[in-house]
Amino acid sequence: MRPKIYLFGDSITEESFSPGGWGSSLSHHFARTADVMLRGYSGYNTRWALKVKERVFPAAESGDAPVAVTVFFGANDAAVPDRCSGFQHVPLDEYKQNLHDIVAFLKRTGNLRSDGSSQPYSKDPYINNLSGLPERTNESAGRYAKQCLAAAAECGVPVIDLWTKMQQSPGWQKAYLRDGLHLTGDGNKVVFEEVIGQLQEGGISLETLPADLPLWAEIDPNDPLKCFEK
Amino acid sequence: MRPKIYLFGDSITEESFSPGGWGSSLSHHFARTADVMLRGYSGYNTRWALKVKERVFPAAESGDAPVAVTVFFGANDAAVPDRCSGFQHVPLDEYKQNLHDIVAFLKRTGNLRSDGSSQPYSKDPYINNLSGLPERTNESAGRYAKQCLAAAAECGVPVIDLWTKMQQSPGWQKAYLRDGLHLTGDGNKVVFEEVIGQLQEGGISLETLPADLPLWAEIDPNDPLKCFEK
Repeated sequence: MRPKIYLFGDSITEESFSPGGWGSSLSHHFARTADVMLRGYSGYNTRWALKVKERVFPAAESGDAPVAVTVFFGANDAAVPDRCSGFQHVPLDEYKQNLHDIVAFLKRTGNLRSDGSSQPYSKDPYINNLSGLPERTNESAGRYAKQCLAAAAECGVPVIDLWTKMQQSPGWQKAYLRDGLHLTGDGNKVVFEEVIGQLQEGGISLETLPADLPLWAEIDPNDPLKCFEK
Repeated sequence: MRPKIYLFGDSITEESFSPGGWGSSLSHHFARTADVMLRGYSGYNTRWALKVKERVFPAAESGDAPVAVTVFFGANDAAVPDRCSGFQHVPLDEYKQNLHDIVAFLKRTGNLRSDGSSQPYSKDPYINNLSGLPERTNESAGRYAKQCLAAAAECGVPVIDLWTKMQQSPGWQKAYLRDGLHLTGDGNKVVFEEVIGQLQEGGISLETLPADLPLWAEIDPNDPLKCFEK
């Protein structure tokens, strides 16, 4: 059947099939070539992701390993420890190690090829609580993003530095983030374009993936059934 | 793993993951409970669908049968025979028989439970060609819709009469159809709501499907890891 692309992450992944979301855009883009599997878990951090990974991905022996996986955690890990969201916080060193462990798991179970497309990243999350103090800060997110880049380099997997990428655009805070954490329509476009580009660099694109059945343009009006006899 | 819902149809299905599309809305709705598998093939009619069905659905022995399938053909079958799109035309009797055969195939291969949710339907398609004569007419679509309803009743599977449903709303032509054939944002909402309702009647809803991992609200801030020890 069709190759699968798994999207593994937190709420930014779970809500990626909302209107204009980067997940649904990926599904639309690969409508005839690949299945995009939504595996987003709101509120999860890398520590919890490690606890559930065997229940998220196909078993090694299933032969159903995806051709690419996006690993998209960090916004919850980077929550400020002594605020309301502190129970989501994961210390920086552990965060990096957890990303290593997730990638190692994916490689071990055949869910990630050595040239796979794992895209961990983190970015600006600064939702306020009632105290008026932020649960997340851009500075904290930046520290996590840096460790994410380091972990990806050490694991030899592709990574997208959305934290830096987004801040290159004036007014990025409101343009790309709805509430300081979750993506706007334009933010979704940035993520979609970056993921598509990264997949393409990894050899996964409309040019390389076969369409699963004859395309409209390949059907001969004078003998339409011919192309279905493979 | 998660239950799967297959969307099998023509371009109205293939483009259902475009922004605000009914397919992506289904994925978003079932984000933590079911995988929505996109199997839309632009330009296809029921005759061609029959030719490819074994390559679209999991084999009977795979144990990977979907919990529900939408079968959404008719717009191409209903093309006017002696116009440019005539090679897509399928005579009315054959159309009805083809729907029977598709449902029989799905039942035989375990891809459709007897209480499954197959939603064949057709609706108004009247794109013009250069001759100025329509390739599709609402009257023709209506005849196909009627046979679709009859076939579903004979097969004992649920059906949505979108042809009738849409025309109950004043200004439906422009409100629900972009080009006389494909759905607008509001048209997508109608399809989404109808499909969700039909799935619910068949026992497939957020109330009945388990979430695949602990939900955010189930995680105890004082002992977050507890809920991951299943």
